[in-house]
Formats: sequence, C-alpha cells, structure tokens
Amino acid sequence: MDFLKAITAREAREIIGAFPIEINTEIVGIEDVQGRVLARDLVSKSAIPSFTRSLVDGYAVKAKDTQGAKETTPAFLNLKGEIRIGEEAHSALFDGEAIYVATGSMVPGGCDAIVMQEYARLATDAVEITRAVYQGENICYEGEDIAYGGIILKKGRKVTAFDRGVLAAIGAAEVEVNKAPQVALISSGDEIVSVDEIVPLGKVRDINRYTVSGLLRDAGAYAHFLGLSRDNIPDITEKLLSASNHSMILISGGSSKGERDFITTSIEKLGGTILFHGINIKPGKPAIFGQLFGKPIFGLPGHPGSCAMVTVRFVLPLVKRFQGEEYGNEIVIPARMTTNVPSTYGIEEYIRVTLKKDEDNRYCAQPIFSKSAVISPLAQADGYVVVSEGVEGIEKDETVEVYLFA
Amino acid sequence: MDFLKAITAREAREIIGAFPIEINTEIVGIEDVQGRVLARDLVSKSAIPSFTRSLVDGYAVKAKDTQGAKETTPAFLNLKGEIRIGEEAHSALFDGEAIYVATGSMVPGGCDAIVMQEYARLATDAVEITRAVYQGENICYEGEDIAYGGIILKKGRKVTAFDRGVLAAIGAAEVEVNKAPQVALISSGDEIVSVDEIVPLGKVRDINRYTVSGLLRDAGAYAHFLGLSRDNIPDITEKLLSASNHSMILISGGSSKGERDFITTSIEKLGGTILFHGINIKPGKPAIFGQLFGKPIFGLPGHPGSCAMVTVRFVLPLVKRFQGEEYGNEIVIPARMTTNVPSTYGIEEYIRVTLKKDEDNRYCAQPIFSKSAVISPLAQADGYVVVSEGVEGIEKDETVEVYLFA
Repeated sequence: MDFLKAITAREAREIIGAFPIEINTEIVGIEDVQGRVLARDLVSKSAIPSFTRSLVDGYAVKAKDTQGAKETTPAFLNLKGEIRIGEEAHSALFDGEAIYVATGSMVPGGCDAIVMQEYARLATDAVEITRAVYQGENICYEGEDIAYGGIILKKGRKVTAFDRGVLAAIGAAEVEVNKAPQVALISSGDEIVSVDEIVPLGKVRDINRYTVSGLLRDAGAYAHFLGLSRDNIPDITEKLLSASNHSMILISGGSSKGERDFITTSIEKLGGTILFHGINIKPGKPAIFGQLFGKPIFGLPGHPGSCAMVTVRFVLPLVKRFQGEEYGNEIVIPARMTTNVPSTYGIEEYIRVTLKKDEDNRYCAQPIFSKSAVISPLAQADGYVVVSEGVEGIEKDETVEVYLFA
Repeated sequence: MDFLKAITAREAREIIGAFPIEINTEIVGIEDVQGRVLARDLVSKSAIPSFTRSLVDGYAVKAKDTQGAKETTPAFLNLKGEIRIGEEAHSALFDGEAIYVATGSMVPGGCDAIVMQEYARLATDAVEITRAVYQGENICYEGEDIAYGGIILKKGRKVTAFDRGVLAAIGAAEVEVNKAPQVALISSGDEIVSVDEIVPLGKVRDINRYTVSGLLRDAGAYAHFLGLSRDNIPDITEKLLSASNHSMILISGGSSKGERDFITTSIEKLGGTILFHGINIKPGKPAIFGQLFGKPIFGLPGHPGSCAMVTVRFVLPLVKRFQGEEYGNEIVIPARMTTNVPSTYGIEEYIRVTLKKDEDNRYCAQPIFSKSAVISPLAQADGYVVVSEGVEGIEKDETVEVYLFA
C-alpha cells in the first residue's frame, strides 16, 4: 500500500458520512421494540394518566376543609362512601365532605387533596382529619405523566426499558422503527482457519469474525457471516457476489499488501469503487472503504486489534446512520492518565485503557501498550482514549476522556 | 402497611443477598456466548499465536546483520526465498541471510527482526537493507497474545464482543456458562388493563410489565409474563402457582394496603414466607420480599417509578447472583449537582438525573423531581444518584456519583 495516499481520520469520517444510504422502516410490537430506533416522533393521543388519581390510601377532601386541623383539634367531614381502584368516580365532592380512595383510585370531582389514612380517624358516617393538607397534596393529575399531544419520545431515539414503559402507558402496542442493517461479513486470508478446526503451524484462527459480529450486534445490526475466503481474486469475488443483497459489506483480512490488492482489485472488477485506502490512524491504518453494488464496503485490517478499532470508530457510526440513530450525547469518562503516552504527530491514535479509582475516588486511566496483532488487551480494556493527529502524546496526570467499550 | 416494620436498604440487601440460590451451568456455542457469564476460569491450552509471526511485509533478518545500515551505506544480505502467509517456515536463517515474509507469515528460526519492505531494495539474489532494526522489531512472538496455561478470562465474567475474539483465538468453540434465570412476571391490580385494550375511565395500562421485563433482559435474564391478576386471593394464588417452575417470581402492583395484603396472604397461603415488607427507600417503600416454592419472590410496588427503581436496586443484583456474575467494577460518572436536593434522614433516596456538560466540559447532574406514579421522567433520565439514609439531601455544586441506567 502506498502510505502517501492515506487520508486523515476526519477525511475518512467525512467520506463515510457522505455515503448515500437508504433508511427503511418497519412496524414492530412493543415486545420487540427495545434497542430499536424510532422512525418518527411519538406523540401521545391521550393524557396519561387519563384521570386524576390518588397517590395514597386515604380521604379525598377539599383542602380548605382541613385548614387548621390538628391531632387535638381535628376537622370533621361527612364520609360519603368510597371510590374503589379501577372504578370510575361517579360521585362529586361538596364542602364538608370526604370520600375514601385507595392508592391509584380516581379522584372525585370537587376534590383537590387527599388526606393519608394515617391522619384520619373513622367515626360513624364521619371522619376526623388530624392534619391539614395543601392543594394538590397526594394527587397525580390527569396528564401529569404525559401531556396530550406532546412529543414523548423523539425520532432517532433507541428505545430503552423505560421507554417501553412510556410506550405501554400511551397504548403504543406497535411502533414504527427503522430497519436495522443486514451486514455481510467475510473473513479473508490463506492463514485463517475456522474456530473449530485444528490449527496447522503457520495458520491462526478467525478472530475478527467474532469480535466484529459481536460489536455489530451490540450496535443493533444483524451480522451474517458469509464464510472464509482464500487470498485470491476468484474466491474473494465469489464471496463478495454472495453479499450483494446486504445493506453493508465487511471483509476483514488482507494483512499484507498483496492480499489487500486482491481485495481492492476484486471490488473494482465487480464494478465497485475504492473511496479510500489507508487512514492515518493507529491501529487500523490499512483500512479500505468503497462502494460495491451501491452499498458501502469496508476492507477491515487483518490484525485483530486494528480490525476491532476500525469497526468501533468507522463502521459503527455508519451502522447508527443506517438505523437513523441520533448519537450526540455519548457518555465519556473523564480520567487522569497514569503515565506518559507517546504518539505520533499526524496520526490519530487510539489508546486502550483500563479504569481504576485513585485514593481521591477519581478515575485514572492506565494505558495498555500492545501490538495491533493481539486481541487479549482489548478484552482487558474498559475503553479507549483518542489522541488526535495534531497532538504528540499525552502527559502523565493529564485529564483525558475515556470512551467506554461496553 | 405498618411502616414501622420497614427495614433499611442495607438490611434489605443483606436479606436478599443471603437468599440461597442454585447456580446451574450449560454449554453454549461461541455464536451465543456474548452477554453470558463464564462458569469457570478459562485457561488457554496453547500459546497464541502458536508461532512467531511477522507484523509487516518485509525481510526476516538477524538484527546484528543490519547494524549501521543506512540509505548511503546499506547492508547486503543474501536472499533465501520467501515464507508465504499460512505456510510453515521450513527454512532457518543463517548469518548474512534474509528471507522475504508477508504480514502474518511465520518467522524462520534464527531470525530476530523484520526489516520493512520500505527499507529494503531488491537486487539479484540479494537485498540491500537501508535501515538498522533492533532485536524483536516488527515481530509478534509465540504466546505474546495469550500465554500457554494462563487464565485468560475469569469465572463470573460477562462475555463481551472482544472476549469472543479471545475465545476464538484459543479455539473455544463451546464454553460453559451459568444458566440465566427464568423470571416469572405477574402484574396485579383491578385497575390494570393490557396495552392493546381500550382503557375505561378509572383504569390504566400495564406499564410495569414492559419496564421490568426490559430491565431483566438487559441484565441477561429471561422474563416470562404470566398474565394480569385481579385483586383477589384466588386469582393471585392461581397466577403464583403457575410460576412455581421459575427461578424467581416478580409480582408488581398492590398499590393500596388492601392489595398488598392480598399478595402477602396469597404467598403465605401457598406455604411461602414474607422476609420483609417495606424498605425505607424513596421511591419504592412498599416493596415485599419473601420465599415461595423455595424461590425468591418480590412484590414490586405498583407505581411505575417505584417499581422500576426497586427492580434496578434490588432485583437486578439478585439476577446477577443467579448468573454468578461478579460486579465490583461498576462505572459511575462523577458529576456536579446543579441544584439543592432535599431528602429525608433515615431514608435511602434515588434521585433521577440527566447529565449535561458545563462550560468547563465537566458533567453536571440535573435532578428530575417527579412523583413515583409517573413513568416518563425515567425515560428522560440518564441515571440516578443515591442519597444514603444518613444524609439530609445534596447541596448545589456538590459532586455526586451518577449510576447510569443504560
């Protein structure tokens, strides 16, 4: 590879970010909606709760009727029956009256506060209130949870467990979400054998298949492994052809220049184009990006460490874009670097770190120095720090932002 | 409920933590292992890589033969063929020799460094080296990724995408993991209707079913919804009986004292025991915990906000224990509280917050004040802050630790 042609990380992000993709939607049931991305703003067609409810077991009253009420000088109110939970409140409350309500019961018209049971004594047809309540006390008003007509959950939001609760509250048994991309995954390399095979000397097992598909699934995409390809143009071409119906194609491998040339040649032979070959990042420099069958295709580096980082930094943002996911508010952990970390000017570096707490209960980031050919340091890392291309390393005790892996 | 009987959050954690449970294991394929918890320490039965490899395209040499080599005064080495990627290296290297290797190729015996192609010029049967290399340069040694016989991944670890890569590297096509708990989930309440039903006045949709099952799934458990129960002992008893084969039982609802009494009575009628009823927490005070059919059972508060927080704080740790998951190193975000937050001495409070960055790029936590009967603030929250029972509130600008929800 001609490294002079390598582009900056920002240029790579711009090229990938400008790649035209189509977002399709589908309807899913509330059971299956978690982790999916909303295709449109969700508006409530009703107020939730749809009626004013009691928050406690006790007596629905007019707050003014309890003014000055104390243990020694209680207020006496006429007891006018009970509104049971789940029932519609047919009675209305007039001055000097109280109605028994349970937690969650509908509040009768005319009532503006609930006296907790603990502050009431029951007498025949009457109730003694031993503590004053303020207007609105122990009441959840109609629409207090979710207002009628308001946007509750925004388009582009990835649905959480709590969001499902909100969907249930408004009766959204089915929801329109963006389709998750179907990603084709191919491993290439004459040295690669499958995980369940005996490994002859000189060969290694296919690691990238499992890290990349795992990362894709965590991000909400479907990963389809299409097999191992040998290092030759006919075999690569055949595998790429079988990926033509997928949303995106990833082919990992091509550690040596010869192998990478097979990949770029195969893409071009099939009518695709190479948009860049080489990014000034570390690890991950030999990454390839292009277009094939109108779909985005990545040639991921063969080294497991490089392959994983290119996936995290460049493939997953495209997965998010396919899903229409908005992703501004990523949580990063501020941490103090425990040691000097050298880096090269002009290269965007990704430093894998573990997070520990120091004596002052502050996070510190311990860098894991390792070669890009190994996988185990990634399993040990909690996250990574980006050293931008305009910076020559990080100094000990400098505060950095740690992007979490999980 | 007699609130005098409510126990502290710590007592509740101790009672739940002491509940005897059985951890069972099963074998899963590497395809399905992500998110599962390892049942035993994983030891590598081989060194990875299993042979010393080249990290670059170039020439395998003895480092000493390149000493002093420069563009102007290159070292001349005899070229002794090539070791192709995936092939076993049969040749050994002697003084004054070089062998061509590709990235990932096995390194020949006798070689202790690789000269990158860029620093070599090919002549007839010889190669001119224009830059000196140090011992070990551009080499990944046998066992450098994973040593033979070492513990690679520890028992109790939840398998990540990168861990899958490690498993692939050592050829662990099948792995022993702890079985995930099968959790029975029942919603109770005369006021509750299913999400797809028309909601009559006075009734509300079942929210807890979706938030709780969503949280359970995020934690790796299987959630089985066994249906809606009316507020009477025969109906609750019948639903509880249908849960007898599950690992754990959750019944949400019982907002009012009368309803909670139905739940505790039903548990006791079926031969179970109530271990506590009421925790001094907010929200979530009316939580129930006990034993039924030898399994742990939770009576979760009916209010959606309370139900969700009791699940997060008390149910999920038990789910982790069922899975044998070690969970020391939870990541919390230090943040500055944007406003005073009052809280009650003697009660452990959970303050839902959103996280924002301030002008100095530090996190600040904005509390969401809301009633426990509502669900939408939970969907807005990024996490929560614990105000322990011995503390009376948090002051503006105090640094707090935010537990993330997602």
